[in-house]
Amino acid sequence: MIVLFTDYGLNGPYLGQVKNVLYQEAPGTPVVDLFANAPAHAPKPAAYLLAAYHGEFPIGTVYFAVVDPGVGGDRKPGVLEADGRWYVGPDNGLFEIIIQRAAAKPRWWNIVWRPDRLSATFHGRDLFAPIAARLACGDTPDKNPAHGDFREEPLGDIRHPDWPDDLAEIIYIDDFGNAMTGLRDSVLPDQEEIAIKGLSIPRGEKFSDIPEGLPLCYENSNGLLEIAVNRGRADQLPGIAIGVQVTVSKK
Amino acid sequence: MIVLFTDYGLNGPYLGQVKNVLYQEAPGTPVVDLFANAPAHAPKPAAYLLAAYHGEFPIGTVYFAVVDPGVGGDRKPGVLEADGRWYVGPDNGLFEIIIQRAAAKPRWWNIVWRPDRLSATFHGRDLFAPIAARLACGDTPDKNPAHGDFREEPLGDIRHPDWPDDLAEIIYIDDFGNAMTGLRDSVLPDQEEIAIKGLSIPRGEKFSDIPEGLPLCYENSNGLLEIAVNRGRADQLPGIAIGVQVTVSKK
Amino acid sequence: MIVLFTDYGLNGPYLGQVKNVLYQEAPGTPVVDLFANAPAHAPKPAAYLLAAYHGEFPIGTVYFAVVDPGVGGDRKPGVLEADGRWYVGPDNGLFEIIIQRAAAKPRWWNIVWRPDRLSATFHGRDLFAPIAARLACGDTPDKNPAHGDFREEPLGDIRHPDWPDDLAEIIYIDDFGNAMTGLRDSVLPDQEEIAIKGLSIPRGEKFSDIPEGLPLCYENSNGLLEIAVNRGRADQLPGIAIGVQVTVSKK
Repeated sequence: MIVLFTDYGLNGPYLGQVKNVLYQEAPGTPVVDLFANAPAHAPKPAAYLLAAYHGEFPIGTVYFAVVDPGVGGDRKPGVLEADGRWYVGPDNGLFEIIIQRAAAKPRWWNIVWRPDRLSATFHGRDLFAPIAARLACGDTPDKNPAHGDFREEPLGDIRHPDWPDDLAEIIYIDDFGNAMTGLRDSVLPDQEEIAIKGLSIPRGEKFSDIPEGLPLCYENSNGLLEIAVNRGRADQLPGIAIGVQVTVSKK
Repeated sequence: MIVLFTDYGLNGPYLGQVKNVLYQEAPGTPVVDLFANAPAHAPKPAAYLLAAYHGEFPIGTVYFAVVDPGVGGDRKPGVLEADGRWYVGPDNGLFEIIIQRAAAKPRWWNIVWRPDRLSATFHGRDLFAPIAARLACGDTPDKNPAHGDFREEPLGDIRHPDWPDDLAEIIYIDDFGNAMTGLRDSVLPDQEEIAIKGLSIPRGEKFSDIPEGLPLCYENSNGLLEIAVNRGRADQLPGIAIGVQVTVSKK
Repeated sequence: MIVLFTDYGLNGPYLGQVKNVLYQEAPGTPVVDLFANAPAHAPKPAAYLLAAYHGEFPIGTVYFAVVDPGVGGDRKPGVLEADGRWYVGPDNGLFEIIIQRAAAKPRWWNIVWRPDRLSATFHGRDLFAPIAARLACGDTPDKNPAHGDFREEPLGDIRHPDWPDDLAEIIYIDDFGNAMTGLRDSVLPDQEEIAIKGLSIPRGEKFSDIPEGLPLCYENSNGLLEIAVNRGRADQLPGIAIGVQVTVSKK
């Protein structure tokens, strides 16, 4: 399976152009759209989002993960292997939280291969998609060292040791207006108080625990602390946007 | 074939997470996105929309139909069989119009099976998708009574006898701004006058029957009375929104 | 492969209804969404967009290309063959630029076949999709002349000789707010100055060549001159919209 995690947007030709490459070069492999609106140009919140959502796909899955504001610059394209799954994308921190939480030590290869056509702005189609297709077909870096298309590098070269285990910020807002944070609910202290921009957000287990029109926070279906408004939109609360701080304090 | 009818929105991970389950548990089955923006949290208009759009898919199709504001509450998940097609979703009325219009008497089973992981807010992924995949693979409730995963219940338990045959309301607005009503055009009297919020809407057969910028109503390609503006947007007419009444009267 | 190029919008049932036909009548054929938001009701800019984006799909690809404001009127449905690819859609100019740029002389057939059910407003599902499926299955007009479903016509009947080789207008705005023009970058003079609504737009190769918040123009990944704002939105520049003129002049 190949899973797409990008900030390309669903409209426009970009995902279709990527899928054309995948269908041609890895025929028969299912391709799943996971996120097409990951935090735009923002590898840091995207890293926490990817780490929360990658785990339910099967071992062997190839993630085409491209949030790449530096495309065409000096950031390096590469492949990460972590706990039996493959991640193809830029070395800008997008895989930092996958690495932090991996059970076994991950490995990283720079992609040395260059396609005949490499546009300045669309490495997703030209470089990452052909590599993702190769991985999905079982052509992994270790199997074909003679190709010289991959060069293993120390994992430390791409790490961001200053990024926290969990990110106390809004990292994603969905079509319902629900706001996900970068905090895993399971790591929060039992009696914590959650607040955003000075507004305390009470806890619930499901939307209907709270009167209509009021906000609540809860563990979402992938384990993140999320903020919603029962039959309303949390993104219409004052100051809710990607990057906004969430405060967690003792009651 | 598995057909998706939800209010999940196209953005965000939800449809991709559902497809992951379907691709893993019913490999090779085509999955079609029909509606991802069915009326949000509103099973009643959604029921009329589903009934207008389900019929062109082949016998044996499994509908993953989830408009489920009571998720996590006491509504029951179930499976409907109607005229050789399967419908998986909540018992909140979403299938009422399918039942009303069925040629043969439909059957209903409560889903007794519970997955190992059942989140509070995403039964689509955790409960309905595995069941839809099983049905698509031919593992129907009658074939495997020993599993004990389904319990047939009287159809009357999930009926809404007070819901009309046709709904004189706006039930959906598409990306062009066209507004569908819950009225089948074929049941309307010949000389009826259609009006919304006091504005009479003339009849047309196609958009170009009316000068540019003016509204018209017509039988849409699935038999519903629909309101559009020729080369404009009906959703910019005053008062057009899901749930708004449509009046039908003798001229 | 079947590639979808429409102005249907991603939401709503339309693409799903088309795919249902394709999956049933051409099972196993990959279907790629290229554009679902081609310029609405506007075959002329759509023609330049299609011509820029069709080339990377394999020989034999069938394009379901429907931007069809005259649906139900007297425009004719047809099939174009150009350089080994097939294009199914209306004869309203949508294929003009494909024809202009073809290496070998294309051929055009009117579709004479009519389905049992032909709605007034959705020829995409009822007429074009079954034909696209037939072409994808190898049932081409020349192979089955006895069917009488296609009638070859002189190419001149559908030409628009007054449309220029390149269109100095905005033809598409993507989800990032980037504005594509109908100008191939390769045909522009070396020292040209690009301006829109009197605002001169400097050249760049990649976004980061320009300070954040300022506009630039560059050759996009499909060869079109495109306008963006580094880490901003070009569609928020004054006067940017589909159809707006782009001026190219000597510095």
